[in-house]
Amino acid sequence: MREVHREIGGWLKPLGAPASIDAAGNLRALYPAQAQTAPRLLIGSHLDTVPNAGRYDGILGVVLAIALVESLEQRTLPFAIEIVGFSEEEGVRFRTPFIGSRALVGRLDDSVLSVRDADGISVRQAIEEFGLHPAEIPQARVSENIIGYLEFHIEQGPVLEQLGIPLAAVEAIVGQTRAEFVFTGRANHAGTTPMNLRADAIAGAAEWITAVEHEANTTPGLLATVGSVQTFPGAANVIAGEARLTLDVRFADDEIRAKAAAKLTHQAKHIAQRRGLSVTSILHMNQPAVAMDPFLVRQIELAIQKAGCKLHRMASGAGHDAMILAERVPSAMIFLRTPGGISHNPAESVEVQDVEKAIECGIHLLDQLSGDPAFLMRTQRA
Amino acid sequence: MREVHREIGGWLKPLGAPASIDAAGNLRALYPAQAQTAPRLLIGSHLDTVPNAGRYDGILGVVLAIALVESLEQRTLPFAIEIVGFSEEEGVRFRTPFIGSRALVGRLDDSVLSVRDADGISVRQAIEEFGLHPAEIPQARVSENIIGYLEFHIEQGPVLEQLGIPLAAVEAIVGQTRAEFVFTGRANHAGTTPMNLRADAIAGAAEWITAVEHEANTTPGLLATVGSVQTFPGAANVIAGEARLTLDVRFADDEIRAKAAAKLTHQAKHIAQRRGLSVTSILHMNQPAVAMDPFLVRQIELAIQKAGCKLHRMASGAGHDAMILAERVPSAMIFLRTPGGISHNPAESVEVQDVEKAIECGIHLLDQLSGDPAFLMRTQRA
Repeated sequence: MREVHREIGGWLKPLGAPASIDAAGNLRALYPAQAQTAPRLLIGSHLDTVPNAGRYDGILGVVLAIALVESLEQRTLPFAIEIVGFSEEEGVRFRTPFIGSRALVGRLDDSVLSVRDADGISVRQAIEEFGLHPAEIPQARVSENIIGYLEFHIEQGPVLEQLGIPLAAVEAIVGQTRAEFVFTGRANHAGTTPMNLRADAIAGAAEWITAVEHEANTTPGLLATVGSVQTFPGAANVIAGEARLTLDVRFADDEIRAKAAAKLTHQAKHIAQRRGLSVTSILHMNQPAVAMDPFLVRQIELAIQKAGCKLHRMASGAGHDAMILAERVPSAMIFLRTPGGISHNPAESVEVQDVEKAIECGIHLLDQLSGDPAFLMRTQRA
Repeated sequence: MREVHREIGGWLKPLGAPASIDAAGNLRALYPAQAQTAPRLLIGSHLDTVPNAGRYDGILGVVLAIALVESLEQRTLPFAIEIVGFSEEEGVRFRTPFIGSRALVGRLDDSVLSVRDADGISVRQAIEEFGLHPAEIPQARVSENIIGYLEFHIEQGPVLEQLGIPLAAVEAIVGQTRAEFVFTGRANHAGTTPMNLRADAIAGAAEWITAVEHEANTTPGLLATVGSVQTFPGAANVIAGEARLTLDVRFADDEIRAKAAAKLTHQAKHIAQRRGLSVTSILHMNQPAVAMDPFLVRQIELAIQKAGCKLHRMASGAGHDAMILAERVPSAMIFLRTPGGISHNPAESVEVQDVEKAIECGIHLLDQLSGDPAFLMRTQRA
């Protein structure tokens, strides 16, 4: 991360936007406005990534922010541009995502700082070991005169490729339910237990997985996924006594998502009861959907059209720093088409001409916002 | 195992049946007949067990053989009784079952002797390290004048308990198909991949597991089990790219079993194709059913009735040493009711009165066989 900071710092300095690292490990760089009292527009994404990752998830959004400032060729705007490269968006080390962006909205609190990694090192210790000072985290908050947050990010899904469109305006980040379901039956000999005397945890789990898929297939836009199944004892000749499954449900409408999650929980119980199994579930996450700022979304659409691209408005199925920033700052995102929808994978890619379109769209957007007095009057949400 | 041999040897010596250990680690003890030229009846089971095991699986059959000889009170029969306590029936250490009993039918050959355990030690080395001589394995074969093999064993299933019957005559050991199925799809983001663009290996596997269960439920007597499911990458927020499943199919009729296995393989392909997945399968075992000796089965039924018990004839869903012996020796088994069907578990148990009935049945059986000239004329199969 230190090398990334050094490298990006080297690009930013000649643009007149010297970089510094805030107490949460975020890279921050201010490209000043005409007037020192001018408001600020935040543009960025995250610099961390996942193991066995691709080259674009996160970092492309930071590079695009820099490219936009570069495209200004030292021209100043009626708002300053603050470039941000967030730390720890993915949550790999601490299993807690958005650590960097939380600091900007005052939510990097003791509960997060106390989370420990696999080696028992807390977020607080990690910050100190990096040479930063947890006591200075409050100073990492966005300034009072912030008027918006923009994030370019690869879609990480196949929708834009299927539509043949390079860019999309993101209107919302979907809400998420994450839970673990455990079906418990009786482990028994696969050769000596007649079918009618079994309590097979795998068979019950399989029936429910099919129900989960059916629920999503019959509710347009709803996503429901069982991504992991663990079976115990897990031997070929033993009927499984236990099956542990994860459930991930996402939708832009929180009410429909809650209803779907409740229905699937009910179905799990019904299936278990009919089969002489028991089932328990633990809710790990119940994250509401987050709307992007409607004004910024419309401005993005206008800019996309000016760049000569077809329009597409979509919800993001993945969480992003914009979801955290939106608590305090009018926020919006621009998605770039992701070939094959492949992400979190070394094969992750973007098309050079799509990146060109993203820059073009960004330049139009900066022009539009510069000429909008109402936008320039916005201040940080309470 | 050395302690078990010493303990059992101590019981056998006063009965006039001194124990020795053959080159495959089987305990062998001959209780002589009236005439030195008399044929031999083999009675026994295995002395090894599984980790976290119960107290009866295997060892009870050896103890019952000794109890029968003890019940003779030094009276000799027209046939000698050879008590055998087999080694390595379960296949825990070398993942190869029936190592001891294979030696009695001349099938403990180089291919088995070369199998290595998790530490790289071969069966041959293990035999040597125990102080035995692999070169003497041919002498472990049953003698030419063997006329039958009898094995008492706990049922390890719930059938006799459900019927309320203490003993059963085993008429066959079912055939077994074991295979591994791998469904392959595309690992993808659970939040960004629409339902209709997924190739979800878990969803496909779940549909097939339900088909496996349906096939068994609609084919009386057929057992089909998916005992293990492994999913990759196995994260809550990632659509699974791979699901690995085991399949275990058992039936007394080999043709029906083969048809069922073929049908399930076809269904896996059909499900995979419809879902844009691929599926491969590897056959690990295709063990034909083994019939028990019809004469001995009828004699066992007669003895069970004389002991005052209701009759039940059944197939064994588990493999046993009798399956191996049956290649060369007319073999049969008597099952004892297993409370709760619980086996391979410290809670494994038998009722004392069921053991009494087993001894009573065994005594009747020895009497019946002693008085049957045709039986005494039998010799080892070619």
